[in-house]
Amino acid sequence: MKTADVSRAALGRIPVYLKYLKGLPPGTDTVSATVIARALNLGEVQVRKDLGAMCGSGKPRVGYAVTDLIESLETLTDSRNGSTVIVGAGKLGRALLDYSGFSEYGLNVLAAFDTTVTSTELSQSRKPILPASGLSHYLNEYAVSIGVIAVPAQAAQEVCDLLCQNGIKAIWCFAPCKLKVPDEVAIRYENMALSLAHLKAQIKQ
Amino acid sequence: MKTADVSRAALGRIPVYLKYLKGLPPGTDTVSATVIARALNLGEVQVRKDLGAMCGSGKPRVGYAVTDLIESLETLTDSRNGSTVIVGAGKLGRALLDYSGFSEYGLNVLAAFDTTVTSTELSQSRKPILPASGLSHYLNEYAVSIGVIAVPAQAAQEVCDLLCQNGIKAIWCFAPCKLKVPDEVAIRYENMALSLAHLKAQIKQ
Repeated sequence: MKTADVSRAALGRIPVYLKYLKGLPPGTDTVSATVIARALNLGEVQVRKDLGAMCGSGKPRVGYAVTDLIESLETLTDSRNGSTVIVGAGKLGRALLDYSGFSEYGLNVLAAFDTTVTSTELSQSRKPILPASGLSHYLNEYAVSIGVIAVPAQAAQEVCDLLCQNGIKAIWCFAPCKLKVPDEVAIRYENMALSLAHLKAQIKQ
Repeated sequence: MKTADVSRAALGRIPVYLKYLKGLPPGTDTVSATVIARALNLGEVQVRKDLGAMCGSGKPRVGYAVTDLIESLETLTDSRNGSTVIVGAGKLGRALLDYSGFSEYGLNVLAAFDTTVTSTELSQSRKPILPASGLSHYLNEYAVSIGVIAVPAQAAQEVCDLLCQNGIKAIWCFAPCKLKVPDEVAIRYENMALSLAHLKAQIKQ
């Protein structure tokens, strides 16, 4: 599966595809992109592209085996690689820690870490906020795949290095800076200011 | 200026373009996309596309008047249309209210509003958090262009309607729902769960 090519928009359509596929009459073994597109009122090119990126190519003139398709799509939203920790438990870190919407994409935010915390605290949703000194040990103890960086820019690279040294596979960075990461680590930057600036640029004059 | 076509990435490059343009030797009247691309080590197609969307087309074989180019780029990051209020002062709303990075894009976050607030409170950076009941009056009093929705999904449409009825031109919605807005109002959805899910899908197996 070429998961690296999956677009954000395609991921967002997974629940729609799954609902359709699971609702097909019993005994439906195969289904084509054309049929799916028509049923869901989506463009055929889009459906072909989505499924191509997420599930590989279907068989010419036959399409996809329904069970394979369901399995591929579910893999993308299962809990594998979904264990996440947050470093930096300021307002943003705590907001992310208590956000309830992650679980539907197989994301499990386990805990947050902060240098100002000296003993375990509990967030509003009763998740642990732990002293930053325990981060390495925690990452070695639990199979954590994703690290969220919600510390100030000047501390971000140090946190990033620590995460990478301890087996993190992906980093979501909210600090306004560029980070050096090993090639095998995926990284996504969230620039809130740029997002809002982009919206402002779309205001109709 | 066709600001609606400006990409997020292009906006992010504005500071780079401005720094280069302002550093040109005195007396440089015109500059071409080719020259800019070479100087900044960017692709020529990209520079052409960026400037085309943000500043219109240059003159064939001459390029752009430097002063026009600077003016167009600065307009995109000036404070016009940058006044913003946040509705919902939970952890996320407060994190956005106190975030210091917005100002470099001409964004001025004035205040947050919340139904649980009964008299004016001050945030950590000493910005006002006001009772939601005063929102309409505030929007009519001040020239606010952008409304950020940071309330739970079930309250989002009501907040959105109130913002639109009171002259808001753009909405940035963090609630996990789709909103009905008038055609003339720009809208951007921020789906944190989808962003993190997209990062997870990029993990190299």
